[in-house]
Amino acid sequence: MQPLEFWFEFASTYSYLAAERVEPLAAEAGVPVRWRAFLLGPVFHAMGWNDSPFNLYPAKGRYMWRDLERLCDEHGLPFRRPSAFPRNGLLAARVATAGGDEPWVPEFVRGVYRANFAEDRDIAAPETLAEILRDAGQPAQALLERAVSPETKAALRARGEDVAARGIFGAPSFSVGDELFWGHDRLAQALAWARRSPEATSAQ
Amino acid sequence: MQPLEFWFEFASTYSYLAAERVEPLAAEAGVPVRWRAFLLGPVFHAMGWNDSPFNLYPAKGRYMWRDLERLCDEHGLPFRRPSAFPRNGLLAARVATAGGDEPWVPEFVRGVYRANFAEDRDIAAPETLAEILRDAGQPAQALLERAVSPETKAALRARGEDVAARGIFGAPSFSVGDELFWGHDRLAQALAWARRSPEATSAQ
Repeated sequence: MQPLEFWFEFASTYSYLAAERVEPLAAEAGVPVRWRAFLLGPVFHAMGWNDSPFNLYPAKGRYMWRDLERLCDEHGLPFRRPSAFPRNGLLAARVATAGGDEPWVPEFVRGVYRANFAEDRDIAAPETLAEILRDAGQPAQALLERAVSPETKAALRARGEDVAARGIFGAPSFSVGDELFWGHDRLAQALAWARRSPEATSAQ
Repeated sequence: MQPLEFWFEFASTYSYLAAERVEPLAAEAGVPVRWRAFLLGPVFHAMGWNDSPFNLYPAKGRYMWRDLERLCDEHGLPFRRPSAFPRNGLLAARVATAGGDEPWVPEFVRGVYRANFAEDRDIAAPETLAEILRDAGQPAQALLERAVSPETKAALRARGEDVAARGIFGAPSFSVGDELFWGHDRLAQALAWARRSPEATSAQ
């Protein structure tokens, strides 16, 4: 079965919804998920933005917060509007990148999103991430050290180049081979695409 | 039953999808629809854009055209990428505004969207609109005259003020009372909201 690549940024509000919902939906569809943290900052910078578009365009921002509240309500997810937005997700993205496809990564990612969007905690602080890692049963100190190693930094930079090459311009995004889907509201469509992809067909 | 207000701009690609799909879905939900043409130009201008964001941000534009093609395919709608984008929908918006809630308006609106996004025709040309009006069994010349009357122009300007006051920043949008929904992919959610609105409950 063709995997779904799930591209997320820790500061991204709609990525929170996707991170919470992707695993059960993908499991139901029988589609494997590859978790791919990336940084929106360079993507937005290339578009001429020095801040989140939700801050640059206030009407869009007001709408997003209300929309997010409604969607969290619909999907039974806790939500508290963070007192700071966007929060710096660099260290969290480095931890997730260091973790690669290791099995603890999804739980860590969801923990960071809940800290940001349900608990109003500072996800840039190493102690916040250490606590989330410990809750996931992981060696926090060792992973935070791996997160800032030259290898991890290089891997996250390479991922940024991959993101640009794929034409990814926002988060969350999903890709199935070369096919790109943008936004939490394309998750079901992306999974359907993965199910009917040629690789999926030939594997059946 | 609380009505759904459907806010659309004739140059907007995703408004095409919404215009084609809103009536059957609303009928199924038992929700009346109010068709509200408006102009995105002043909205974008207020955000500092002098062109469609799909032209200003090429990665976003490339994605949108592919996404639109996939969605039209999924919903069985004809699609041909127009040779000019965005096309000027001012006259068409004036015709739709002149028509108000008259019963021919939805058919006219869909005809204009198909001309733009399935037939690659110039929707700014009065003769294109005249043909669409005649196909809808309407007196084309009289309606095109009403469209450019001072009353219609004033009504469309007033609608722009209403759009700004409601915080509408893109098309299509849907509103149910003060509750705003943005994007074709929020159509089902907006209809569900209309169904469970207090007015709907008290009317049952």
